[in-house]
Amino acid sequence: MTRKKLRIGVMAPGSRINHAVAERVEGLAARCAPSIEIWFHPQCFLASGHFAGDDATRSQAFLDIANDTSFDVLWFARGGYGTCRIAENSIAGLTDVARTKSYLGYSDAGYLLAALYNEGFTELAHGPMPSDILREGGEAAVRRALAYLTHRAPETLETSISPDMPSAAFNIIVLSQMLGTPIQPDLTNHVLMLEEIAEYMYRIDRSLFHITSNPGVRRAAGIKLGRCSSIQPNDPDFGQTEEEIIRHWCAVSGIDYLGRADIGHDIDNKVVPFGRLPRHDP
Amino acid sequence: MTRKKLRIGVMAPGSRINHAVAERVEGLAARCAPSIEIWFHPQCFLASGHFAGDDATRSQAFLDIANDTSFDVLWFARGGYGTCRIAENSIAGLTDVARTKSYLGYSDAGYLLAALYNEGFTELAHGPMPSDILREGGEAAVRRALAYLTHRAPETLETSISPDMPSAAFNIIVLSQMLGTPIQPDLTNHVLMLEEIAEYMYRIDRSLFHITSNPGVRRAAGIKLGRCSSIQPNDPDFGQTEEEIIRHWCAVSGIDYLGRADIGHDIDNKVVPFGRLPRHDP
Repeated sequence: MTRKKLRIGVMAPGSRINHAVAERVEGLAARCAPSIEIWFHPQCFLASGHFAGDDATRSQAFLDIANDTSFDVLWFARGGYGTCRIAENSIAGLTDVARTKSYLGYSDAGYLLAALYNEGFTELAHGPMPSDILREGGEAAVRRALAYLTHRAPETLETSISPDMPSAAFNIIVLSQMLGTPIQPDLTNHVLMLEEIAEYMYRIDRSLFHITSNPGVRRAAGIKLGRCSSIQPNDPDFGQTEEEIIRHWCAVSGIDYLGRADIGHDIDNKVVPFGRLPRHDP
Repeated sequence: MTRKKLRIGVMAPGSRINHAVAERVEGLAARCAPSIEIWFHPQCFLASGHFAGDDATRSQAFLDIANDTSFDVLWFARGGYGTCRIAENSIAGLTDVARTKSYLGYSDAGYLLAALYNEGFTELAHGPMPSDILREGGEAAVRRALAYLTHRAPETLETSISPDMPSAAFNIIVLSQMLGTPIQPDLTNHVLMLEEIAEYMYRIDRSLFHITSNPGVRRAAGIKLGRCSSIQPNDPDFGQTEEEIIRHWCAVSGIDYLGRADIGHDIDNKVVPFGRLPRHDP
């Protein structure tokens, strides 16, 4: 019996990756998921200042994969920075072919996940990316992504995900910096999961003021807080933990605080599908 | 002939100042503006973690001055961080007395300037604060603030300010992190001046994506870019200057780019009144 291979196209919407990342991910996939075929768009390795190629090149790479019927999945290679610069043009160039595939990534890639969610795309997920292979023990994260992409393995999902409640997940500053723009997603009745990396605690506080003050976010079912790692030293000490901060802002805004979420910029980052999980596996 | 003294009340909406700042500003005022009486609210010197006293204390200090008929001016002592935490409660506690006085500050104080502007307050201005005395040559900034507060001295104003066009000015990340909240100001037909300090260039780019993507900001008459100082080293180099970045986002968004503004986190920071300058001095 031969099964059709799952074809994954990888592009980098913000910062670049190097060839070693691609080789290690391809090697891992060959060992643990032989039913997968991964293609790294050459754009992933370009360098244009801060970015993996200029805006037009990154946007075209996104469309090359999204609009190509031979790909089942568009996997974002890495976050970094730059996705917001291509979101609008990329969305405008999509065809109906793009609606038939899955999209996976997190961090800076959240701008495109949000924009696609607003367009009614149904197979979007916040989860590990190829660049996670560079973390110590990072193969676990990439294996999780592959297990999610090949068979929606239940153990890859953030534990609170259920068919009863739609979800969404974002990096805190990324969500903050799309509020009040056309790509702000409708989070009504969603469990909103948030995580952060390498920020000062006062900036986490400021961004959570911003997020929880937004009328659209206030229509969410509640917020779960993922990991906030590599917090920068604050002088004077901020005096509150990230959980005290989110509890404060949830209390002020009337949003339910639903506890911790198992997501973050680390190898334990679980998958959070956007929207509602199907009640039965397709 | 005796003139009524101008009474200025100073409070710190975010971070604290120390007594030396107050003493130096009082000394300068006594020498160069004897018609002024400055009172530093004791709250300015409190410490509660990151803040000049806890939220309730800072909010009360704001109301102590704003709602007191004996003060003509509320002068924000310093930015830092924390104003967003007290904006909503502070606005809710204002009486009509608060409408009769002037408010001056910048940076983090922008959250309260925005909230007051939304409430129809007419004497709000972005300009130097007491803490600027700590900069090298900082007396020039404080003298400018006093000259603006005492007699609206024309030379204190940003040079493009005119009665023909309403203006507003903000720190970039501060404006960004109020978009889509109830305190986002209506900038329709305004010249919007923006400045930044101590950010990475990629974050300035990201915040300008955010600001220029907002439909309300797109109704502005145009944007003038103030100084972006102490830019953090970007790895890899961002490859664009702040002026190239604002030109990019203005072109993408259809907002007119109106050139540089003479504002910033420095001693040359000119005063930008919010709204329209009166055609004749009152």
